[in-house]
Amino acid sequence: MLKAKVHITLKSGVLDPQGKAVEHALIGLGFPGVGGVRQGKYIEVDLPEQRDKSKAKSQVEDMCKALLANTVIENYNVEVVD
Amino acid sequence: MLKAKVHITLKSGVLDPQGKAVEHALIGLGFPGVGGVRQGKYIEVDLPEQRDKSKAKSQVEDMCKALLANTVIENYNVEVVD
Repeated sequence: MLKAKVHITLKSGVLDPQGKAVEHALIGLGFPGVGGVRQGKYIEVDLPEQRDKSKAKSQVEDMCKALLANTVIENYNVEVVD
Repeated sequence: MLKAKVHITLKSGVLDPQGKAVEHALIGLGFPGVGGVRQGKYIEVDLPEQRDKSKAKSQVEDMCKALLANTVIENYNVEVVD
């Protein structure tokens, strides 16, 4: 069985209010030296019938374009593992 | 400058309605062979003043326990890179 690990991150230059909120909260909790926080999504997709890693990767990239990522403001990265 | 890459995932056995919604949406869009989807968070923390990777890792693990993860239902994984 193959599993796809998908990282969806905001493109650089896109404001990340959620990350900023986490950053301020960490500083407020007394963690020194936090220079910046960016928050993204991590999605695991199980592909039980797929055997071909490169086909699986291209299929999950299609999923990213169609649903998982907003490609106007987000980048996606797909890694397929056994 | 060090950067910590944090993955926060739901523990196995914990219901993931968001992942289920994504799974049904993917199947509805006509993607075959999707066996399951789990959604987690991916957080990048910049540590501009930190030089020591193992100290950085333990500091970010403290951040996970204090704020980033709900350790009752979530696991966290910290990786520190240059």
